[in-house]
Amino acid sequence: MTLLDGKQTSKEIKEEIKTTVSEMKARGERVPHLAAVLVGDDGASLTYVGSKVRSCEYVGFDSTLIRLEADISESTLLKQIDQLNRDDTLDGYIVQLPLPKHINEEKILLAIDPNKDVDGFHPANFGRMALELDAFIPATPFGIMQLLERYKVPTSGKHCVVVGRSHIVGRPISILMSQKGTAGNATVTVAHSRTENLADLTRQADIIVMALGIPEYLTADMVKEGVVIIDVGITRVADQSHPKGYVIRGDVAFDEVAEKASFITPVPGGVGPMTIAMLLKNTLLARQWNLT
Amino acid sequence: MTLLDGKQTSKEIKEEIKTTVSEMKARGERVPHLAAVLVGDDGASLTYVGSKVRSCEYVGFDSTLIRLEADISESTLLKQIDQLNRDDTLDGYIVQLPLPKHINEEKILLAIDPNKDVDGFHPANFGRMALELDAFIPATPFGIMQLLERYKVPTSGKHCVVVGRSHIVGRPISILMSQKGTAGNATVTVAHSRTENLADLTRQADIIVMALGIPEYLTADMVKEGVVIIDVGITRVADQSHPKGYVIRGDVAFDEVAEKASFITPVPGGVGPMTIAMLLKNTLLARQWNLT
Repeated sequence: MTLLDGKQTSKEIKEEIKTTVSEMKARGERVPHLAAVLVGDDGASLTYVGSKVRSCEYVGFDSTLIRLEADISESTLLKQIDQLNRDDTLDGYIVQLPLPKHINEEKILLAIDPNKDVDGFHPANFGRMALELDAFIPATPFGIMQLLERYKVPTSGKHCVVVGRSHIVGRPISILMSQKGTAGNATVTVAHSRTENLADLTRQADIIVMALGIPEYLTADMVKEGVVIIDVGITRVADQSHPKGYVIRGDVAFDEVAEKASFITPVPGGVGPMTIAMLLKNTLLARQWNLT
Repeated sequence: MTLLDGKQTSKEIKEEIKTTVSEMKARGERVPHLAAVLVGDDGASLTYVGSKVRSCEYVGFDSTLIRLEADISESTLLKQIDQLNRDDTLDGYIVQLPLPKHINEEKILLAIDPNKDVDGFHPANFGRMALELDAFIPATPFGIMQLLERYKVPTSGKHCVVVGRSHIVGRPISILMSQKGTAGNATVTVAHSRTENLADLTRQADIIVMALGIPEYLTADMVKEGVVIIDVGITRVADQSHPKGYVIRGDVAFDEVAEKASFITPVPGGVGPMTIAMLLKNTLLARQWNLT
């Protein structure tokens, strides 16, 4: 069994990006510049955004944190978005979700210039990805593809069952793995809450991507020997024996499934750490694609 | 066994559109206006475009056929596209494919305003469809969804195997059938040229969508009793006994598979006739969405 080590792989990717940025600097080029918009002061959001900004600094990007009051009006936020779209010194930006309830999230995401949409949430980017054009791919599926590629997990002709059909994980990873190319050419089934006899499907699968959000849902009796497991689930489960009062659990009963798996992502330390690395990668791509 | 009669269903849809247009006229509203751009004088393309224009007239739409010389330059064609994008009297337009070899088809399709892209080939429309926003859906998958809906074919929780991963048929229909909604909520597998043991998959399927382009590929031994068959294949097969010298064959060995099927589309007369009806439907939607 090989552990798909996202912590280690994300470090490698960050080092590669750092090297590329050093080379850009050495050539006298402007380095990539990422901005993050944070509305309000939700603790978790602050932590995420802070970690993204620090990662930018680590690899040598310019970064800007734009903090806005929680009671900002939708129209003022849209003006801010418009400014970011016009800012030629900026390669990409993200709007940290969730937004306060009085703001229409969809409206905000649709206002982001797709050429700066390094989160890859804009439909124009989704469509470009699905039609095999250059596109910003959302961080989670992009990170999964990187893990599969770098660990040379065989995918061509294999049957992959993706459990979950969300816009930012299940749907995009199902498309990417079924397209031509490295870590692609799989026969992909998308299963979801309405799927009948899920275990019959997962037992046939060579590769399973769990993106359901139910802790330890996938058990050993639901998989075959040699299966490849990608676990996207991250749920806090109450545990008073732990100093924080909770533990993080994936969608996979790790210990028992790992015994049958050929490759498996741990939780934490699997898919999770890949996301910031892929955000940085998208920002670098934005810089490279916008060289005009 | 129920025949999914695309000829009849497309007639019904056209009659519905015709009624809606009469009502628009009666209210003094401008009727939908579709333009078709035809470059060169390829015989098949002329036939298709002619049939689209006649269908527009039948339902009461305004229509414009723009014929351009085969040796038109890409930049002149792009100027024409730009004019169509700016034309406020036009709700939608199509550029008939294929284009002459000296023209970059992708560049032309990307230049079409997504709000007028009634063929649904622009990535912005693909992304909007995949992210469950209002979108122009390409005619073939849109037509299949209509057949499934109108014949009340059960899809929720059923296993659907889509054979083919093309941008305009296999990929979009796989997404639509797996989304929430009527004719949706299926567990969908996308199979393709690299799929191993295709027959093992199709034998499990409750619904099979064949979009492979290999005549009579799917045989009775590859399907289970009660299967629903959607055949998108349209291949000319040489047949000297026939006055035209060929016959049209689908991807399904119709006679033998029909004996096991609960629902099946004939070829011709199944999915094919639905496409023009869905182009008209998209044009009507364009008129309704662009009421501003």
